[in-house]
Amino acid sequence: MALLGEKYWIGIDLGGTNVRMGLFNDLGVIVDEKRWLTEADKGPDYVIQKLIDAISSIKKDYLIQAIGIGLPGSLNSQEGIVLSCTNLPKWINIPLARIISDSLQTPCFIENDCNVAALAEATMGAGKGYDIVYYITVSTGVGGGLCINGEIISGATGNAGEIANIIVGESKIRHSYLNSGSLESMASGLAILRAAKEKGLNVKYAHEVFILASQGDKDALDVTESALDFLARGMAAIAHVVDPHIFILGGGVAVSVPGFTSNIREKYEKYVYEMMRGKVKIELAKLKEPGIIGAMHMAKKQQEAKAKKKKE
Amino acid sequence: MALLGEKYWIGIDLGGTNVRMGLFNDLGVIVDEKRWLTEADKGPDYVIQKLIDAISSIKKDYLIQAIGIGLPGSLNSQEGIVLSCTNLPKWINIPLARIISDSLQTPCFIENDCNVAALAEATMGAGKGYDIVYYITVSTGVGGGLCINGEIISGATGNAGEIANIIVGESKIRHSYLNSGSLESMASGLAILRAAKEKGLNVKYAHEVFILASQGDKDALDVTESALDFLARGMAAIAHVVDPHIFILGGGVAVSVPGFTSNIREKYEKYVYEMMRGKVKIELAKLKEPGIIGAMHMAKKQQEAKAKKKKE
Repeated sequence: MALLGEKYWIGIDLGGTNVRMGLFNDLGVIVDEKRWLTEADKGPDYVIQKLIDAISSIKKDYLIQAIGIGLPGSLNSQEGIVLSCTNLPKWINIPLARIISDSLQTPCFIENDCNVAALAEATMGAGKGYDIVYYITVSTGVGGGLCINGEIISGATGNAGEIANIIVGESKIRHSYLNSGSLESMASGLAILRAAKEKGLNVKYAHEVFILASQGDKDALDVTESALDFLARGMAAIAHVVDPHIFILGGGVAVSVPGFTSNIREKYEKYVYEMMRGKVKIELAKLKEPGIIGAMHMAKKQQEAKAKKKKE
Repeated sequence: MALLGEKYWIGIDLGGTNVRMGLFNDLGVIVDEKRWLTEADKGPDYVIQKLIDAISSIKKDYLIQAIGIGLPGSLNSQEGIVLSCTNLPKWINIPLARIISDSLQTPCFIENDCNVAALAEATMGAGKGYDIVYYITVSTGVGGGLCINGEIISGATGNAGEIANIIVGESKIRHSYLNSGSLESMASGLAILRAAKEKGLNVKYAHEVFILASQGDKDALDVTESALDFLARGMAAIAHVVDPHIFILGGGVAVSVPGFTSNIREKYEKYVYEMMRGKVKIELAKLKEPGIIGAMHMAKKQQEAKAKKKKE
């Protein structure tokens, strides 16, 4: 049970498969955690009602200051609107923050899940103490998030960090919404899997291709080395644009492959100016639940900024 | 003559050919301006002594708060050291800020010239009122600078904005220090000129190729359209990394070619996500002397930050 008057914050990671919810005290320590299936196929109304019910039951016992939600997709985070969401069908122009805050009479803020993960790592993970943090996730897809001095930079249209679409090479494969030769089409888990299958390798997951490569399979090695080379080109582009102090690599592929960061560093250094070599930190993500931690920090920062603005 | 006790600031643009110096009052209005030949071939000692002499003669009459210098090259701006400089030979590891401030007993700050121009445009030019400003110069080479909320983001190693080295395509041309297929090698004035000459066009300057193209010369049009397409790819990469509110295009090529921004916009929109199209501002640089204005603003900001830190 909560101490009288003590302040609490909620961080939610709303994914295509699972919803994770964390209750945090004012020191940022997690005091309760819940997880349930998103059941995205039942549509936004159903998913949102389950969110409201879960928060309501916590609100009975705790003084909630604000709710932060991280979710995959294109958002207008300033207005709290979900514009579209790859893994949440029918989420088109949903004013999620307003629906939740109106229903629960508690401020609610939303942000892209990669930006939220970047903030979590910048605040409490591998990026702690660094001014410019660029978080990159390599799993089925490729995503990114930028934090400067502990603040998420989501950009003019909320697309800062949408590095999947950066062109890193030439390719004949056409995509419906990505550039041909884009980072995601050349270096994601899906791209690795596709290239491996084209070479006749019998694999189901991208990390299996890395295992085969480490066992000396030449075809597998060709595939993984090429993918990492394109990822390194993408990171070099980021470095020439904003020159981060640290790259943090997260996501299933990055985290499950031994020696991922040192391999990437070697390739990255080829593509940056001599004076930049050996300077940037390249580290694996440290946090197990960056989604809920980042969402909580984001909500806290937004709420504090709002309070400060009101005062002025 | 100065008013007693009124504060003044100096902004200097130290180029390979010319030095420009502006004296600004506390409102940012220019009250005096000087210009002389750099005579870079005489070496750094000579160039620096001439700088000191020029500032000294102003210091007799005006209460100078700080001196800001923008120069082309790789700098450690925090320590005030020029690491290397393409257009200033023998400028290797020169502690320029310390030499000037020690000699004149006045704080001196240095910064890359593109970053300084970005700050000038963000503060007083086309970027006024926008949070995230990305300045791009297209002249003989290609350069850039990033400002967020009126602050230069120079990056971990001072290389934020060094967009010349971003890979935007495949090329067989090898460079000594740039990536093959880099933005500068595909879209700079020099690249346009080289491509035009390869096609047998009789031109001396890049803007002549644009004139021929506008007169219907098919070869010239091929060259300019290709260069602008690569520039658009570079801008799209920047947009996916940091998603600026405005791109400001400066430099000889950008400014002298009619319809440059609308042509670039058309190409740029192809390379960004649908939801980003039609959103970003693309404007020509507005200021005639961004170098001295930006250097002054940079020095003012640095000096005020230093004073604030001292107070705390």
